[in-house]
Amino acid sequence: MSQKVVTLGEVLMRLTVPNNKRLFQTVNFDVTFGGSEANVGVSLAHFGLKATHITALPHNDLGERVSRFLKLNGVSNKGVVRKEGRLGIYYLESGAMQRPSRIVYDRFDTTFGDLDESEVNWDVVFKGADWFHYSGITPAISQKAADVTLRALKEARKRGITTSGDINYRRNLWQYGKQPLDVMPGLVELTDVVVGGRVDLENCLGIVNEDWETNCKMVQEKYPHIKAFSKTIRNAMSASRNELTAVMYKDGKMYTSKTYEMKNIVDRIGGGDAFMAGLIYGLLNLEEQQTVEFAIAASVLKHSTIGDVNLSSKEEVEELVSGNSVGRLLR
Amino acid sequence: MSQKVVTLGEVLMRLTVPNNKRLFQTVNFDVTFGGSEANVGVSLAHFGLKATHITALPHNDLGERVSRFLKLNGVSNKGVVRKEGRLGIYYLESGAMQRPSRIVYDRFDTTFGDLDESEVNWDVVFKGADWFHYSGITPAISQKAADVTLRALKEARKRGITTSGDINYRRNLWQYGKQPLDVMPGLVELTDVVVGGRVDLENCLGIVNEDWETNCKMVQEKYPHIKAFSKTIRNAMSASRNELTAVMYKDGKMYTSKTYEMKNIVDRIGGGDAFMAGLIYGLLNLEEQQTVEFAIAASVLKHSTIGDVNLSSKEEVEELVSGNSVGRLLR
Amino acid sequence: MSQKVVTLGEVLMRLTVPNNKRLFQTVNFDVTFGGSEANVGVSLAHFGLKATHITALPHNDLGERVSRFLKLNGVSNKGVVRKEGRLGIYYLESGAMQRPSRIVYDRFDTTFGDLDESEVNWDVVFKGADWFHYSGITPAISQKAADVTLRALKEARKRGITTSGDINYRRNLWQYGKQPLDVMPGLVELTDVVVGGRVDLENCLGIVNEDWETNCKMVQEKYPHIKAFSKTIRNAMSASRNELTAVMYKDGKMYTSKTYEMKNIVDRIGGGDAFMAGLIYGLLNLEEQQTVEFAIAASVLKHSTIGDVNLSSKEEVEELVSGNSVGRLLR
Amino acid sequence: MSQKVVTLGEVLMRLTVPNNKRLFQTVNFDVTFGGSEANVGVSLAHFGLKATHITALPHNDLGERVSRFLKLNGVSNKGVVRKEGRLGIYYLESGAMQRPSRIVYDRFDTTFGDLDESEVNWDVVFKGADWFHYSGITPAISQKAADVTLRALKEARKRGITTSGDINYRRNLWQYGKQPLDVMPGLVELTDVVVGGRVDLENCLGIVNEDWETNCKMVQEKYPHIKAFSKTIRNAMSASRNELTAVMYKDGKMYTSKTYEMKNIVDRIGGGDAFMAGLIYGLLNLEEQQTVEFAIAASVLKHSTIGDVNLSSKEEVEELVSGNSVGRLLR
Amino acid sequence: MSQKVVTLGEVLMRLTVPNNKRLFQTVNFDVTFGGSEANVGVSLAHFGLKATHITALPHNDLGERVSRFLKLNGVSNKGVVRKEGRLGIYYLESGAMQRPSRIVYDRFDTTFGDLDESEVNWDVVFKGADWFHYSGITPAISQKAADVTLRALKEARKRGITTSGDINYRRNLWQYGKQPLDVMPGLVELTDVVVGGRVDLENCLGIVNEDWETNCKMVQEKYPHIKAFSKTIRNAMSASRNELTAVMYKDGKMYTSKTYEMKNIVDRIGGGDAFMAGLIYGLLNLEEQQTVEFAIAASVLKHSTIGDVNLSSKEEVEELVSGNSVGRLLR
Amino acid sequence: MSQKVVTLGEVLMRLTVPNNKRLFQTVNFDVTFGGSEANVGVSLAHFGLKATHITALPHNDLGERVSRFLKLNGVSNKGVVRKEGRLGIYYLESGAMQRPSRIVYDRFDTTFGDLDESEVNWDVVFKGADWFHYSGITPAISQKAADVTLRALKEARKRGITTSGDINYRRNLWQYGKQPLDVMPGLVELTDVVVGGRVDLENCLGIVNEDWETNCKMVQEKYPHIKAFSKTIRNAMSASRNELTAVMYKDGKMYTSKTYEMKNIVDRIGGGDAFMAGLIYGLLNLEEQQTVEFAIAASVLKHSTIGDVNLSSKEEVEELVSGNSVGRLLR
Ligand SMILES: [Ca+2]
Ligand SMILES: [Ca+2]
Ligand SMILES: [Ca+2]
Ligand SMILES: [Ca+2]
Ligand SMILES: [Ca+2]
Ligand SMILES: [Ca+2]
Ligand SMILES: [Ca+2]
Ligand SMILES: [Ca+2]
Ligand SMILES: [Ca+2]
Ligand SMILES: [Ca+2]
Ligand SMILES: [Ca+2]
Ligand SMILES: [Ca+2]
Ligand code: NI
Ligand code: NI
Ligand code: NI
Ligand code: NI
Ligand code: NI
Ligand code: NI
Ligand code: NI
Ligand code: NI
Ligand code: NI
Ligand code: NI
Ligand code: NI
Ligand code: NI
Ligand code: NI
Ligand code: NI
Ligand code: NI
Ligand code: NI
Ligand code: NI
Ligand code: NI
Repeated sequence: MSQKVVTLGEVLMRLTVPNNKRLFQTVNFDVTFGGSEANVGVSLAHFGLKATHITALPHNDLGERVSRFLKLNGVSNKGVVRKEGRLGIYYLESGAMQRPSRIVYDRFDTTFGDLDESEVNWDVVFKGADWFHYSGITPAISQKAADVTLRALKEARKRGITTSGDINYRRNLWQYGKQPLDVMPGLVELTDVVVGGRVDLENCLGIVNEDWETNCKMVQEKYPHIKAFSKTIRNAMSASRNELTAVMYKDGKMYTSKTYEMKNIVDRIGGGDAFMAGLIYGLLNLEEQQTVEFAIAASVLKHSTIGDVNLSSKEEVEELVSGNSVGRLLR
Repeated sequence: MSQKVVTLGEVLMRLTVPNNKRLFQTVNFDVTFGGSEANVGVSLAHFGLKATHITALPHNDLGERVSRFLKLNGVSNKGVVRKEGRLGIYYLESGAMQRPSRIVYDRFDTTFGDLDESEVNWDVVFKGADWFHYSGITPAISQKAADVTLRALKEARKRGITTSGDINYRRNLWQYGKQPLDVMPGLVELTDVVVGGRVDLENCLGIVNEDWETNCKMVQEKYPHIKAFSKTIRNAMSASRNELTAVMYKDGKMYTSKTYEMKNIVDRIGGGDAFMAGLIYGLLNLEEQQTVEFAIAASVLKHSTIGDVNLSSKEEVEELVSGNSVGRLLR
Repeated sequence: MSQKVVTLGEVLMRLTVPNNKRLFQTVNFDVTFGGSEANVGVSLAHFGLKATHITALPHNDLGERVSRFLKLNGVSNKGVVRKEGRLGIYYLESGAMQRPSRIVYDRFDTTFGDLDESEVNWDVVFKGADWFHYSGITPAISQKAADVTLRALKEARKRGITTSGDINYRRNLWQYGKQPLDVMPGLVELTDVVVGGRVDLENCLGIVNEDWETNCKMVQEKYPHIKAFSKTIRNAMSASRNELTAVMYKDGKMYTSKTYEMKNIVDRIGGGDAFMAGLIYGLLNLEEQQTVEFAIAASVLKHSTIGDVNLSSKEEVEELVSGNSVGRLLR
Repeated sequence: MSQKVVTLGEVLMRLTVPNNKRLFQTVNFDVTFGGSEANVGVSLAHFGLKATHITALPHNDLGERVSRFLKLNGVSNKGVVRKEGRLGIYYLESGAMQRPSRIVYDRFDTTFGDLDESEVNWDVVFKGADWFHYSGITPAISQKAADVTLRALKEARKRGITTSGDINYRRNLWQYGKQPLDVMPGLVELTDVVVGGRVDLENCLGIVNEDWETNCKMVQEKYPHIKAFSKTIRNAMSASRNELTAVMYKDGKMYTSKTYEMKNIVDRIGGGDAFMAGLIYGLLNLEEQQTVEFAIAASVLKHSTIGDVNLSSKEEVEELVSGNSVGRLLR
Repeated sequence: MSQKVVTLGEVLMRLTVPNNKRLFQTVNFDVTFGGSEANVGVSLAHFGLKATHITALPHNDLGERVSRFLKLNGVSNKGVVRKEGRLGIYYLESGAMQRPSRIVYDRFDTTFGDLDESEVNWDVVFKGADWFHYSGITPAISQKAADVTLRALKEARKRGITTSGDINYRRNLWQYGKQPLDVMPGLVELTDVVVGGRVDLENCLGIVNEDWETNCKMVQEKYPHIKAFSKTIRNAMSASRNELTAVMYKDGKMYTSKTYEMKNIVDRIGGGDAFMAGLIYGLLNLEEQQTVEFAIAASVLKHSTIGDVNLSSKEEVEELVSGNSVGRLLR
Repeated sequence: MSQKVVTLGEVLMRLTVPNNKRLFQTVNFDVTFGGSEANVGVSLAHFGLKATHITALPHNDLGERVSRFLKLNGVSNKGVVRKEGRLGIYYLESGAMQRPSRIVYDRFDTTFGDLDESEVNWDVVFKGADWFHYSGITPAISQKAADVTLRALKEARKRGITTSGDINYRRNLWQYGKQPLDVMPGLVELTDVVVGGRVDLENCLGIVNEDWETNCKMVQEKYPHIKAFSKTIRNAMSASRNELTAVMYKDGKMYTSKTYEMKNIVDRIGGGDAFMAGLIYGLLNLEEQQTVEFAIAASVLKHSTIGDVNLSSKEEVEELVSGNSVGRLLR
């Protein structure tokens, strides 16, 4: 039977400026949706796993739109709470060449930030679940959102479900009074797989060291239940050209994936979430080296389509890992 | 020399669902901008008057976009304050036939609601002004917005500038503690031309009567400096077909315009603001009967283009009043 | 608990020529999906009922596309069989004014026509069902499709489920050797609610009479278990203007709805299916007169949006029945 | 064997503002092509006749684009001369409701105005021809264009080919020194069928009378070889609603067509040319009353599609004349 | 006088998913047309040669659309047979970066597969022809299509016309009972110029060898009338980046073109057909080395435009061969 | 206070073929505007300087459209003369890969070419100005345009304003009787900063030498008041890939910028004008080496957006110079 993954987090509407125009001149927007953790759930659903996303959405037609987006992409909305409020938005001006992509956020005071842990039906959401995933964005939004994250981790732990956290530090969030060091250690305490780079480990856990591998060891000493660490290494020559590699530290060993050269990038937003989904899929189903290869290939494919979510199937990722499909015309 | 009109109010981004689709299914939006009072200013600028709009806009690329919108439409942005915050948004699902148009608002906690009267340079804005216009929407947004409206009216009065108010009652606003009856009488006290229907007069001024003309007389007894009252009468057979008439009560006389049958309506949003602009233009330049004819024709033309603002020139309105242009192909 | 309706039938891809162009010159198509019975299921799902659709779809990305379409519109795909084959298509050149709409079909030899009754899991599909609906299109496609229709009716009867048939006669189908009179009587034998006009009753059941009410009585004498007959009366002045009325004959009485004048029609395809869904909803939940009023209002709303399916909610239909929403701007 | 019609005239590029926007704000144009006489040729080609158009086009990719347009629409380009110069352009802002359509011309100093009668291979062009058609626009463009028109009429007369002229008076043309009364009488002298209203007859032939029938008689006295006169009567209630009727005076009798009420007009440009093509088709193939009915129905159908040219087939026009197709859905 | 080339083969409608979206999510398609052999004809027409294409198209508006496509691109449709049936379709999801392009075919039971050799007017089609071209796709479609290919080769041979075959092996076709080895040798027997790689030569002619040059020699021993062999060598690093080289074996000598590095590929579909057209043009007009240079440059230019067909003129190809135009801005 | 720059020159409408299509097949155009000198003004306005453009525009809605374009981009239109005439146009078919971009001009006999020096209000235009810029395109258009350029230079000199000239030689212009050597020396006489390559210096000033630095010295000997020379060096590997470097000769020294490799170019039109604006900004505000770095980075950013004008802010250019923003995602 297929595995089930539960994710928790806000979903934003993304309004993209089309055709290489600037935001300050556009007369239309393309509409898509995304949120770091929902992107992970959608990607896993496209790999054939069961996915359930916990979130709150406004009780109007925009909330309805997002709810349909999740459903359309194979994610159960049993964890979706509908209530009064507004939907968060972000505007994307896609970069090209030496011009960087720019995001304008309009994500404060949203319905999600007002989600109370009592509004989620934890038994229904976690029924039969194998994995729970959250990110460092959620506890940065509001006290309620931080509470709901902690509660979810406790509910997962209670049921023996593996947990992962993408401890993504976002300076512009964290405006409700708490700082990362007040909150993140309590969450990492309940986390089995940690994804983050040096800056994230420093800001969220207060661990400072030049070398990522050493960092991981230092974190593991403090949080010995952590089973694996991972991150991607992105070398960005321009908005259109990046190199991408994955590394994982697990059971005292480092695993490094193949490096992909990505030219003619279509859309890099959500590349990290596609990686995260590949990592979860791999840890549930593959050997370590295969895991980093699968995860990085998933992320590369994400860069080739429009929108925050990876629409590739498991087979498509496997074909890229094997190198069979690259440059071919599949009839 | 051309006359100058000053307007005050919030400008929202309007995201319209294209091609007769529903909001809950759309994959793109057309982007335009509007706000009741800015629409009046834009329309007057297209008639050839000088227009200056007082508002607050976020200090990001969306604020830049709105600022360019005003400028592009001939409105001076000497009254625009740029500061941190968010831009209000409304989503429009255009109706057709028996299906009504639907608006979803996302307009709370915006930059405009945080505009402080001390941030406006009143001398610059009112320099050489002949008319000041506001609406009942602004004082409904926040205490600061109500304060800025009152201040603007006082500044206008001080300079001997004629004032008009579209006392538009919006039930869903007024959420900051005050009620219309707490605020509106103080504003009407300083208003020379009042636009509103029976429901507006009841909610904003506590005047109740079955007959609009009697209503106007009752209001005028209480606020004797008011020089004129006006409103449109809309008979809406469907989203696509309406009839429209204007009435004005001035110096003890009623003036009624021709009734236009509007079939194949393109976009009715902003129809009232186009009327308001026509009314101001008329009161500044025309006889009474001509004024209602000009104002209602301006409103009709607005219904034939996309977007909140009336893009017709004074000559185009005059041609419709004269009946010369209807159904012609102008080469 | 919400009622459940099961529908059976082919889903076609609809390729629409945009912007009032002709099919023989177009350089792009808008893509939507539809099928008489699936349209009924989708509409009922939008009214808040549970809907399950039985169909067969190709095992490629086009089949995936249709499957997502059903899911997105709230219809369970537990009755969807995926197998090798092709997806049926129809091309729509939308008419305007005195120019009629034109459809080009490419719907032969499809996956659906090859659906074997043994491929459907009848227990799963009919679990908890309250109603089963089919149309005269399905038995016209292939022997297998006729067999699957008969089997579905037997499965429904066995479980005490109410059945309806839209006995839609389509001359261009029926190419596999059988004629309507060979097949339809056996299906009507198991049908509780029959929708059809005089031409349909004549071609499918061999009943000939000038007057529809008399026709119904004659059919009922032969098939005494039939509980109700219904049809719409469409008076088409042009592609853009129609009048629409519903009639129902039930328990010896005729019920006639209000007549709607539809000007500025957006898309009439699927108008009959929207009516059918309204009728089923009404017979399950409303009095007779309310039923015809609800059904015809549902059909009218369908004409105001693009695509085969009615996207209106139950509340939106009720608002049109009550006349409250017409011509309003809902904020 | 199918009949052959030769037409002569300039083809312009038409740049249309899409989506009910104004010309002064648009960020894109739809591209089509048209010219009064070419429109007639294209329409006749769509009726199944052979059509050859005489014109001059620039020797660049825009000229290539127009050449392909003619070819695509079934018109032979054996009469197309390619040479240095520019292509004429017109900008169309489509009206709606009470807002009139507006055209901005950029059509002076074009390649066509420089076409020399010696550049046309008259033998090739007129080989097997049955009819020649011109309009009053061509002689208004330049002396060379007037010369080429006269030459074409002489070549046609020499070969016994029937001729028609749409003596369309355009005040804004005629800027090369000659006036209509200097040129048009010489052309009408060689014309068998004259299309024009009272204003045209007055400006082009100096015939003044209140009543069109009397006018025709007066013209015929002066130019006794003229066999028929015709015109359309357009009653324009708005840009979206017109009534249309055809009249023809032939052999001393008046023929009047059915009057069509056109609501929801898509595009009226080229309506007169579609009528002209219908008239030519009728005079070649039908009785008089049938001729006016066919011609007016052709014109009505033109109003239902985008672009200057009528894309209807002969069968489609006949179906409208018979009333069979109106409001139907043709499968 | 310009040379004339006759081509034979099916034309499919191509429905392309726009904007880097996936097929399973798209809401619109761009419409173009193509078929291996028709692409060759169109390209030759753009080089200035006469081209006539033999095919069968349905007798509906889609068939009309394809017929207009050929005409628009300069290909005579004297070889087009119109009859009942359906048009074949293929769906293209354009790849990007490491994501391969994907094609879904819907091309069985089409009008073309039912084309009978007796329906073609061979005398008209081959009148004045210099070259006949077919591909291995046609005989793979149906027995009738194989018969028509053989008949065409015999008709060409009878008239002394040079023949070429692109012996393109497509595994998914060949479903009517015959295998390539049953059919292709009989066709190659009548072929002067063979285009194919090792896999094609093996599957179609049973010739197996590691080295392409040796292969050619072995084929030539068996089919001594063959005058030349050619193929392209594509090195595909990603969907967006390929290297392309041409080789030709003729009169015992190998000719190898310059290798082009193609970055930022726009559309690779039809690249082989553009090469084929360049090869035919070269063999008719150029020396051997010039021929491979012209053919490969033609193919490279095809990759820079949307659609199956090469829209480059002979001069544009020559400019690329000379290297003069690359990277320039031509004013 | 911010610096003020005055520019003089024609503004053309640019009609761009979208989506990698060819001009001879397109069915729509994207509309933008540009002109070498206006592009410089717009770019400087985006850097935060005051800009005023001197030009003539037609008195119709197209002229209105251009006027709004300037205003929207922050350029004062106090120097815009509105009069009868036509707007110049250019058509752009954007190249890709090895296919070059192509421009078709339709720019003769325009309103601008008819601008008389007496129609400009020189006092208003030059009030408070710090810099005046022209190009070699203007004196090539007409005698009047050459006169207006000379007059502007004299007016600038009179007021002690620094002047620059981009002495851009365009062979296809200069059709009114004069040659560059008749006119350009008189203009360079009044020019402080000269931008041009070897070909320009040869054609405009008759200075011939292999080495650009030597050329500059030779020119300076003849025109000793010239303070600086500059140009860009473009190495164009394809339409999609170029390398770009700037050089400046000033006070006897050569300054060379960093070389940028530009892959995935979006639109190169206006790249030189963006450089020119960067150069003016630098000479007014920066040291020499900083100036060439700023100017070349401005040009690179222009290549990443659609349209003739550089929409980058000063801060965005500075970020590229510093290398901080490249490849980042700015939130
Ligand atoms: Ca897009
Ligand atoms: Ca798009
Ligand atoms: Ca729109
Ligand atoms: Ca639209
Ligand atoms: Ca559409
Ligand atoms: Ca359009
Ligand atoms: Ca359009
Ligand atoms: Ca359009
Ligand atoms: Ca496209
Ligand atoms: Ca497209
Ligand atoms: Ca574009
Ligand atoms: Ca585009
Ligand atoms: Ni999937
Ligand atoms: Ni809703
Ligand atoms: Ni809803
Ligand atoms: Ni205006
Ligand atoms: Ni900004
Ligand atoms: Ni900015
Ligand atoms: Ni719904
Ligand atoms: Ni798939
Ligand atoms: Ni899939
Ligand atoms: Ni036709
Ligand atoms: Ni060309
Ligand atoms: Ni060409
Ligand atoms: Ni060509
Ligand atoms: Ni047809
Ligand atoms: Ni046709
Ligand atoms: Ni800026
Ligand atoms: Ni105008
Ligand atoms: Ni104007």
